Amino acid sequence: MINKPIKPVVVDTSRSAYARLKPAPVTAVTLTDGFWAARYKLNRETMLLAQYAQLEETGRINNFRRAAGKLDAPFAGLVFNDSDVYKWLEAAAWVLAATPGGALQQKVDALIADIAAAQCHDGYLNTYYALERAGERWSNLRDQHELYCAGHLFQAAVAHYRATGATSLLTVAQRLADLLCATFGPGADHRQGTSGHPEVEMALMELYRATGEARYLKQAEYFLNARGQGLIGGRDYHQDHVPFRQMPRLAGHAVRALYLCSGATDLYAETGEPALGEALARLWGHMTARQMYLTGGLGPRHEGEAFGDDYELPNARAYAETCAGIANVMWAWRMLQLNGDALYADVMEQALYNAVLPGLSLDGMGYFYVNPLQSDGTYHRAPWFVCACCPPNVARTLASLPGYIYSLTEDTVWVHLYAPNDAMLTLPGGREVRLVQRTRYPWDGNVTIDVLSVGEFSLRVRIPAWCQADAAVLLNGEPLSIAAPAGTYVEVRRSWQVGDSLCLRLPMRVRQIEAHPYALENSGRVALMRGPLLYCLEGVDNPDVDLRDVTLPLEEFAIEETFMPTLLGGVSVLRFGAEGVPPDAGWSGRLYRPVQQRPVVRRPLMALAVPYYAWANRAPGPMQVWLRRG
Amino acid sequence: MINKPIKPVVVDTSRSAYARLKPAPVTAVTLTDGFWAARYKLNRETMLLAQYAQLEETGRINNFRRAAGKLDAPFAGLVFNDSDVYKWLEAAAWVLAATPGGALQQKVDALIADIAAAQCHDGYLNTYYALERAGERWSNLRDQHELYCAGHLFQAAVAHYRATGATSLLTVAQRLADLLCATFGPGADHRQGTSGHPEVEMALMELYRATGEARYLKQAEYFLNARGQGLIGGRDYHQDHVPFRQMPRLAGHAVRALYLCSGATDLYAETGEPALGEALARLWGHMTARQMYLTGGLGPRHEGEAFGDDYELPNARAYAETCAGIANVMWAWRMLQLNGDALYADVMEQALYNAVLPGLSLDGMGYFYVNPLQSDGTYHRAPWFVCACCPPNVARTLASLPGYIYSLTEDTVWVHLYAPNDAMLTLPGGREVRLVQRTRYPWDGNVTIDVLSVGEFSLRVRIPAWCQADAAVLLNGEPLSIAAPAGTYVEVRRSWQVGDSLCLRLPMRVRQIEAHPYALENSGRVALMRGPLLYCLEGVDNPDVDLRDVTLPLEEFAIEETFMPTLLGGVSVLRFGAEGVPPDAGWSGRLYRPVQQRPVVRRPLMALAVPYYAWANRAPGPMQVWLRRG
Repeated sequence: MINKPIKPVVVDTSRSAYARLKPAPVTAVTLTDGFWAARYKLNRETMLLAQYAQLEETGRINNFRRAAGKLDAPFAGLVFNDSDVYKWLEAAAWVLAATPGGALQQKVDALIADIAAAQCHDGYLNTYYALERAGERWSNLRDQHELYCAGHLFQAAVAHYRATGATSLLTVAQRLADLLCATFGPGADHRQGTSGHPEVEMALMELYRATGEARYLKQAEYFLNARGQGLIGGRDYHQDHVPFRQMPRLAGHAVRALYLCSGATDLYAETGEPALGEALARLWGHMTARQMYLTGGLGPRHEGEAFGDDYELPNARAYAETCAGIANVMWAWRMLQLNGDALYADVMEQALYNAVLPGLSLDGMGYFYVNPLQSDGTYHRAPWFVCACCPPNVARTLASLPGYIYSLTEDTVWVHLYAPNDAMLTLPGGREVRLVQRTRYPWDGNVTIDVLSVGEFSLRVRIPAWCQADAAVLLNGEPLSIAAPAGTYVEVRRSWQVGDSLCLRLPMRVRQIEAHPYALENSGRVALMRGPLLYCLEGVDNPDVDLRDVTLPLEEFAIEETFMPTLLGGVSVLRFGAEGVPPDAGWSGRLYRPVQQRPVVRRPLMALAVPYYAWANRAPGPMQVWLRRG
Repeated sequence: MINKPIKPVVVDTSRSAYARLKPAPVTAVTLTDGFWAARYKLNRETMLLAQYAQLEETGRINNFRRAAGKLDAPFAGLVFNDSDVYKWLEAAAWVLAATPGGALQQKVDALIADIAAAQCHDGYLNTYYALERAGERWSNLRDQHELYCAGHLFQAAVAHYRATGATSLLTVAQRLADLLCATFGPGADHRQGTSGHPEVEMALMELYRATGEARYLKQAEYFLNARGQGLIGGRDYHQDHVPFRQMPRLAGHAVRALYLCSGATDLYAETGEPALGEALARLWGHMTARQMYLTGGLGPRHEGEAFGDDYELPNARAYAETCAGIANVMWAWRMLQLNGDALYADVMEQALYNAVLPGLSLDGMGYFYVNPLQSDGTYHRAPWFVCACCPPNVARTLASLPGYIYSLTEDTVWVHLYAPNDAMLTLPGGREVRLVQRTRYPWDGNVTIDVLSVGEFSLRVRIPAWCQADAAVLLNGEPLSIAAPAGTYVEVRRSWQVGDSLCLRLPMRVRQIEAHPYALENSGRVALMRGPLLYCLEGVDNPDVDLRDVTLPLEEFAIEETFMPTLLGGVSVLRFGAEGVPPDAGWSGRLYRPVQQRPVVRRPLMALAVPYYAWANRAPGPMQVWLRRG
């Protein structure tokens, strides 16, 4: 995405259906070491426990006990608080799949029992509309998040079922889903309506895939088609301003828009409906060409947590909700499965490292809801939020990360992400393939994939778009004479032997990135990237200069890269010579002045940049991504 | 302001009281010709009548008839709709002073009768809290605008009294003001409270000045002092986050903040309280150095119609409410009276031409509420708004404009603004001075002031800060050998004879203005100004290029200035050679890319710029103030 033209998105709409790639199950892959394994472990050992404590303390779990008649207390918190519990449960289920038992297993089992007990006889389940508000069910689909909460229940249930094989939560989910199917639909014998906050669409699609029940697919399709019909007010905030297939660009609340796109992509993957595929291609193309932060973050506008105008990408004032970064990953992942175009994997990786991960502190105890690209030092992470969508969303993303690494086609393993792991994959044709990845990625672009299976099949390895120099692919230490252009998957097909080793060499040079001139705040500025990582300056590393005054040379300059194992959990830092202007030089407190022809006096300085995902983990201070140039 | 350092604001706090300058009465000055006279006439002949029709059609006047028991209908519109009627009345009163009688007089008299009839026996007057809501008076000072509406009544009443000598509305105002004095105050026998929307403070000060009743000053002081005490919620939106004298910078809703500053300045002018003067100086200095658009517009943030962070000045996304521009004029005018520092007059003039006037269409029938500095062509003026604060605010500003031209000290006439007028001024010492101004300003910097009185006194003429070359002052055609630096008042003292003529030569060269580099959206860009006017490009004049691609040369270049009498009501346009880049040149639809060392291919083009105040009066199309450079 970064350094090659965005190709027109090719969604094959000539066939009647689908996704070419099949995701490898989350449970088939074990993160063994390195960057992501450390975060996976942090999630399991710290985040999930701390989040569970928050769910208890804030009354979110008690809301279920209350609805079940086990507790006499008022409903606690916001109307969509159930969803936080479900997202946590989804995360915990994936973690249990890898490490069953223990305290987490007990919490999950007890929680599922509480949830089941809160379900009404007819399958209805929403703790806000329990008891004294039972008569108000479905009365405000636009604002009250009933279908949104239902969707998160479905996703948690599918995760729990896939992770453990148990149907305890799946049964609860299906009872509610069946009630939705019985209640909402296009016919005169059904209610009309759709959710003000999309989510139930992709959740129903997952339920369809997990159960094979086509009515869930039909129900997802109904909810998608019901948008833009004026049923929920017609505002773009709710993606109700126009029918989905006619949307020219994403607008309104960013997380809602992206969840909707994810659901629509799931639907397209099953139906192959041309108009839907065209809409997805159009929306994706517009988003990545005019609406996306360099982080992969989306939704710049605080007002309405929303997409703005084209090229409206303020830095200090960025909203870029952590959940929108996650939703970008979710959508990109789904688009990637359609046809295996590496551009989706590039955006997915970009957002994972630079839009999702900054939402989490290194100690796993703090979260950003909003992700600015410039800070005056007054912005910090919080352990929890009243509206706590982001923390459990980060948790379920980390817990399911093993599932983002590989996809499968008939006799091919697609390798999307690089992280040490041990994978036991079953190709659609039935062949079992065991792979072991070893790499220091993202600090180093060398990746080794050991093949521990025998037989003829292909490995398709991703050459990231950020590779400026040609990548190299080696088999058992010998360079293969195949082209490996950036932004593609390189196929290596052969009859593999146990012990074969495929190596990638992805040269990681520091790139100076510039933004389209219509993105006004970045004019005359560059941002530094290395591999998939975006870098930033922090005040704590650069104490003697206002970060807004740091200016990079126009001509080429040396950047020294050093891995510092004890800094910020282990990061590669960048050091380089730059220049600073004395504070307020030539301005004398003015805001405007006639242009000066004389050059500004500058002083040399050494700057140190750290990965953007790691900012705000030390002494509070300013931060700057986009640096002046020239 | 533009082209000299902003001096620390010098407010003399060593004395116990005063404004050094006394405003010349609105009624003492008649606009005779030229730029502002045309707009004054447009106000009288078109705007006031059209606005009155809106006030009738939207039920705003009927609300008074309803409260008076003359009409059985529900209250119409927003809770603060009374204020629109009062602002219109204030405007109409000033116009009547110059041209009494006729249909306007009848409307004003009838309206005052309706207002008086709506007043309760105890003096209370607010049509929303009439009849069925009478018991809810003062129940929500934060949100419900009762004191705000009262303030606008007081201002209208003072204007009507000063303009006509009649006390019909002043009596109504005093009855309500006396009720406020009896109701609110610091003692245990009074209610505590202050208004969520400042306005009553400056209105009470004006009522004090008009009547000499010190209780109104005390009441204004109470309302100011009651802020920041947690009485109305403690949010900066309402300027309640900190006591006024401790505010480090303006924050929250811009119009509210600026109305409050205006009232505080009125109070300071009477009390000379050092802490108040220091706060005003601090807030003014911060605002002009870090928060103000080049237009003089204020409040960049849509969310909350608010001040943003320092240097947060987006162009396309500017809010810059027309009322905030007006409030800037009001505050600058009050600060100017304190000590005659020309920097306030510079901002006042800058905002009048570039922040207030763009709010009005050339035909007087359309208004902007929001004033962006860049548009994609989809933004247009509207004849009225549900929340219609801006239109009558423009009307009262134009109607009182004759009062902004001169101030008086003991034996000196201060000339702030240049516009053809005939003034009969009475100096505080008793001397009568008649002056006649002739000028083509703002198209030409030559101003002639004919003196039609005899005797020794001073004229202090303003040399605008925008004068880059030295200005010249001529007496009866002969240059005076006195310095006339930009951003000062030049004093010419002599024994004047009838027929003496003082001429100013204010060279008007086109200036390329750059913004402080922390104002990110303007990096590497310049805006064009000539005299007090800011210029912009419009698509209709520059059809063959995306305005965002127009690039000015780094080196000096010729700008041809031509007055076009039939264009946009008569404007000087600027023509110059520039360059354009082909659409999307080198970007191929990407949003980010590694920096390119090779130069972009550009093509030469001729650009035509028009005054910013005149934009959006022709075919809808894009507009751009800040242009790329180099």
